[in-house]
Parts: sequence; structure tokens; C-alpha cells
Amino acid sequence: MRVRDLGEFPLIDRLAARLGPYGKDVVVGLGDDTAVIRKSEDRLYLVTCDIQVAGVHFLPEAVTPRRLGRRIAAINLSDIGAMGGEPRHFLISLAVPPDTEAAFLDDLYRGLVETAGRFGADVVGGNVSRHDALVIDAFLLGEVEAGREVLRSGARPGDLVMVTGRLGASRAGLALLLGEADGGPAVPGDVRERVLAAHQEPEPRVREGRVISRLGGATAMIDLSDGLASDVGHICDASGVGVLLREEALPVDEDTLAVAALVEAATAARKEAAGPSGRADGHMDAARAQAVRWALTGGEDYELCFTAAPRAAERLAAEVEAVTGTPVTVIGEVLPPEGGRWLVRADGRRVPLEAAGWDHLRTEEA
Amino acid sequence: MRVRDLGEFPLIDRLAARLGPYGKDVVVGLGDDTAVIRKSEDRLYLVTCDIQVAGVHFLPEAVTPRRLGRRIAAINLSDIGAMGGEPRHFLISLAVPPDTEAAFLDDLYRGLVETAGRFGADVVGGNVSRHDALVIDAFLLGEVEAGREVLRSGARPGDLVMVTGRLGASRAGLALLLGEADGGPAVPGDVRERVLAAHQEPEPRVREGRVISRLGGATAMIDLSDGLASDVGHICDASGVGVLLREEALPVDEDTLAVAALVEAATAARKEAAGPSGRADGHMDAARAQAVRWALTGGEDYELCFTAAPRAAERLAAEVEAVTGTPVTVIGEVLPPEGGRWLVRADGRRVPLEAAGWDHLRTEEA
Repeated sequence: MRVRDLGEFPLIDRLAARLGPYGKDVVVGLGDDTAVIRKSEDRLYLVTCDIQVAGVHFLPEAVTPRRLGRRIAAINLSDIGAMGGEPRHFLISLAVPPDTEAAFLDDLYRGLVETAGRFGADVVGGNVSRHDALVIDAFLLGEVEAGREVLRSGARPGDLVMVTGRLGASRAGLALLLGEADGGPAVPGDVRERVLAAHQEPEPRVREGRVISRLGGATAMIDLSDGLASDVGHICDASGVGVLLREEALPVDEDTLAVAALVEAATAARKEAAGPSGRADGHMDAARAQAVRWALTGGEDYELCFTAAPRAAERLAAEVEAVTGTPVTVIGEVLPPEGGRWLVRADGRRVPLEAAGWDHLRTEEA
Repeated sequence: MRVRDLGEFPLIDRLAARLGPYGKDVVVGLGDDTAVIRKSEDRLYLVTCDIQVAGVHFLPEAVTPRRLGRRIAAINLSDIGAMGGEPRHFLISLAVPPDTEAAFLDDLYRGLVETAGRFGADVVGGNVSRHDALVIDAFLLGEVEAGREVLRSGARPGDLVMVTGRLGASRAGLALLLGEADGGPAVPGDVRERVLAAHQEPEPRVREGRVISRLGGATAMIDLSDGLASDVGHICDASGVGVLLREEALPVDEDTLAVAALVEAATAARKEAAGPSGRADGHMDAARAQAVRWALTGGEDYELCFTAAPRAAERLAAEVEAVTGTPVTVIGEVLPPEGGRWLVRADGRRVPLEAAGWDHLRTEEA
């Protein structure tokens, strides 16, 4: 059995089974946004790492090194945010091709230190090695008051499901980098810049996570790295619950819809150029469907998804918006475990969440 | 200026200059075996990471995955040992080619968890990504009592310089893997196995480091990863001192001498085969010189090098040997900063330590 046939999450489960018993100070091991280690009676340490590989996670020729540094900081800060914690200290492992310009690394570190510093974290060490591809692995240590950590495992049937910010914009930015809108109408410069920034330099929701942690009442939380459909599934797995999300409620913004429309127009133009069987009509519906797919499965939005009982949910949403200015949207509710995992489409059809991101959907009447 | 022209340590210095002010809980940032973070009034956290790249740090076809896992654990454990600390928790970042056998990773993790467990550490998390080369980055969190941490920066003129165990055996193992003894006399199987183990599965000196830390009196300590000449230079840099090492005192064992002799014999045989200008005589002297070079610059021995005033040094050496069975050897002494950095050759010549590992030596009368 090869890694390619096994897939990421089954591989992690398989490796997790190899891990021996944890030390007594381990509160949570593998399986949440971070591991949780007891620091003292009233404080916990949060530890997380994330490896980023050139050509897999980023395109070195399409991103400035400073922005790449900010992105790498943000991805890790986001995991601490998703636990309700405060980031503290980064270690950075670098593998670099020997012909890399030192100025490139200067700027990468400048970006890293800038974004870390904005959230109260520093870079205290690391190591450097040579390799034929640029690999950057960041390790981040954070802290949270004992009892204030928000795990993935506490969601209860009847809780509301909420997200911060907007969904799909990161994937819209990636679409432009991948040339998916090439050959269609021009992408307005301001739209392009905003979705590229969403993809290359996501804003980690550390302050939002702290507000949620301190106010109390959130039963589960995760940051959206793989995509909403997959990540909300991790909450379901850890909490032993089902979920129902509403397509109409997903916070997809105008920029993302605009890029989706331009990608659809470009696709239609290519089909038309290819022969008389091409069709350009109806592409606004297709654009909306594309944007929803990006919101569900595009990934890398680095928003927070969290659950709370309805009354607490209202208070949490109001407080996050008041303190941070970041909107919070209720997008669905937690079901009992036997309730399954569903997306209710705009037309009322209910589709299995795991299939909701794909073009060919299994459907079932709601 | 490219990374290749800058070199590893100037690059690290350059990146270090980018790091902002550290948080108040940072006791030591970049520049020691680990970063040091205050945990409480009487406890410190130690954090370290090390990235290992297939083809750069190990040859995947020449090492079993289980042994590779043990090696990766050992390299990081060694850094905690060099601070006098107790290892606690690993996080592992993996980048794997998709056609990797899952069983390979099973065994890698088995080895990792085994060696971590032998020293009281566990593996609490990590992340997995795809890449065309296997990259394994390990982060290790450890602890030490406040005041018991042994930094690189406390060596004083008159202190003795000591090392645990033996030097050069790891490089002897690498020589066999690189085929440097091919074409010469056969390498005895038991010698081969011992030097391969030294290279592929070094024994981290965690217990030795703990004895040194608890007994007190050690003024500086480092683990030998780059090679004695370079690593003792790090103590000199951090402590602002000079050093004098004695070639005759270096603990080079019989296995390393044997492999060095076989490599020299193979080299002589190749020269002879190449034409009449080859010489096979005098290769035992050449073998001894080779073994000394390996001890000074071969690297990856993962022994501890530490300094202490003469009386404390005697007590430390005796206690480490009594408690752990690991020999400790005095190999030189610390000089005032203006004293320079020297190696005294077996024939009494004094050579600059930075050149002592090279074939073409700058020499100076002692």
C-alpha cells in the first residue's frame, strides 16, 4: 500500500496508531489543531507545525518572498487561534536550494517576523539545510488559560455552526494564479489584488479566537485549511455528531463571485473557440455554483469555524464583530450522530456534504 | 549574493539579524543548541528542530526506515542533552513522495517512537505533505530546572575541554556507505556494523547531559553535529575565548582507525591500478591522519563537548562514567580570547584549528 493510494487522513490515522502512550502532561495529542501540553495548574501550552513545500503549497515565482513569509506565519498562527490561544514562539526549519538569493530569505524572514509580531509572537530559532526545493517548516508554541482551550470535540446536537469572515476567496486567488481566467474578460485590478491577498497572505483569526475563548460558550472550533466540507467533518468526527449546512448562508463575497464568473466566461470562451458545441449561456448560474464549490472545498481560507448553543452563538457572534470587526455568519447546525452530514442547496435539495464539493452530486430530496 | 556563496553560518547570522526583539519569557533565542523559554520561576522549556532531507542528510536506499526513525529522534534528543535537559515532546513534519510505501513510514515512526521513549519523550503530533523527496523535520520540546541549563557561552580561560564517547566513527560509517573502501581489503563484518550504527543510529547523550547538568560545574556544552573543530568553535564564539586541543588526546577508537586504514589501502590500490606513480607505502600514517580528520571534521558523532574548571572537570568525568558507563576524555583547554584556536599535533606542531581538518595545513611551530 502506497501513500498515494492511502490518502492523507488515513495515513495520519495509521501513523497515529504507532504513537506510544503520551506523557502525563499531554492534555491532547494528535487530532486537533494543535497538541496541548500542561504548563502549570492554570496554563496550557499549544504546539503545532506546518510544512510548506515549493510547487506543492506555493509557487515561488508567483509570490513575493515577504508575502510568503507572512503566509507561513499566518498558517501557523491560525492553528493557535483555532484553539483560542495566544501565539508565542516560532522555530523555523528551512531547506533551501544553494542558488537561492540571500535577499530572498531576508525578505521571507522579514515577512515572517512582521506577521508573527503583529500577533505577539517572535522567532526564537531554527535550522537551515540545503535541498533542491525550498521547504519551510514552521513550529509554533502558544499558550491558553486551562479550561479556555476550544477543541474540536465538544460540539453537541442543536448547536449552531458559525464561520468568521468569508469563504472561497483564497481559491479564487489560486484560480488566477493557475490561469483559470486566462482567455476570458479582463480581471479588474482591485478584485485581483484582493483575492490574491486572500490566497497568499490570509489574515489569521487569532484575535477572533481569543474573543471566542475568553467569552466562553463555544463547544468546538477548527480553522479552515482543507476546506469547509472537510474541516467541519473533522469537528463531526471528533465530537461524534452530524451536521447540516445551508448553501445560501455561506459567506461568499462579491470578489469571489466575480472571479468565479470570469473563470466560467473564460471556460465558455475556450469551448466556443474549440467548436460549435461550446455554449456561453447560463454561465452566471455556473459561476455561483463554482463559487460555492470553492467555499466548500477550495481550502486555505484560514477562517474559524465554531459551534455553540444558539443563545451563546448569538452572544459570540456579536462580541467577535464588536471587538474585531470581523463578521460572523451562522451557516448551519449540529445534528445527532445518526443525522448524517448534509448540505441544503439553494433550491432546497439536500446533498451529502462529502459530495457537495464535486461536480457530479449524489442528491436526495430534502 | 547566493546562499551557496554565503555558507551556512553566515546565512544563519544574517537571518538572525532579521529577528525582532524576543518576548520577555525568552531566556536564550537563536545561537545555542536549543532556544530557552521560561516555563515558571524554577523551570525552563527547551525547544529545538532539525530538518533531514533524503539525499542530503541520509541515503534512503542505504538505511532501514526503522533505523532512520531512531536517527532522527537521536539527533534532536542530542540537542536537549547538550543543554542538560530532559526531552519531552516531539512534533514531526513529513513531506513524502506519493509512491512511498506506507509500511516504510510505519517503520520510520516505530523507530522514532522507540528512541524517543527510551529517553522519556513522546510524539504528540505533526503534519504530512507530499513532495518529490522525503523530508522529515522534527521539533522537540524539553525541560530543565532553571539555573541547570548549560549554554555555550560560559567557558572561561583555564577550563578543560572534554568529550563523551569517541570521535570519527560516524564519518567512518559514512565512508563505507560512500564506497570509499571499495576496491581494497574486505571490511570485517563486525567493524562495518559498529561504524554503520555510529553513523545511522547515534546514541544521544541525554543521560550524560543530565548528569553534567545536575552535578553542576560545567561552564559550556554543545553536541557534536558539525564536527569537533567547528563545534568547539561555537563555544569559543559564544564564550569569547580561545582553545587548544591535543590531537593525541582525541578519543579515536580501533574501529575508526581500522576503517581509515582500509580506506587508505583502497585509495592506494586504486592509484596503483591507475599507473606506476601510485604508492602503497606509508598508508598507516595516512590512515591515522585520516581518522584524526574524521574526528575533527567528520561530524555527526553526537557526542557532548563540554568545559569545566579542572577540579570540577575531574568530578564531572568520574560521575558521568560511573552513572552512565560512557567514557569522558579531556582533549584540551580553554585559552584567553587572544590565545587563538589551535590543535597541537602528535609531533608537537601547533596548527590553527580551523585548518586542522584539511589536507593542506597552515602550520606554525609550537
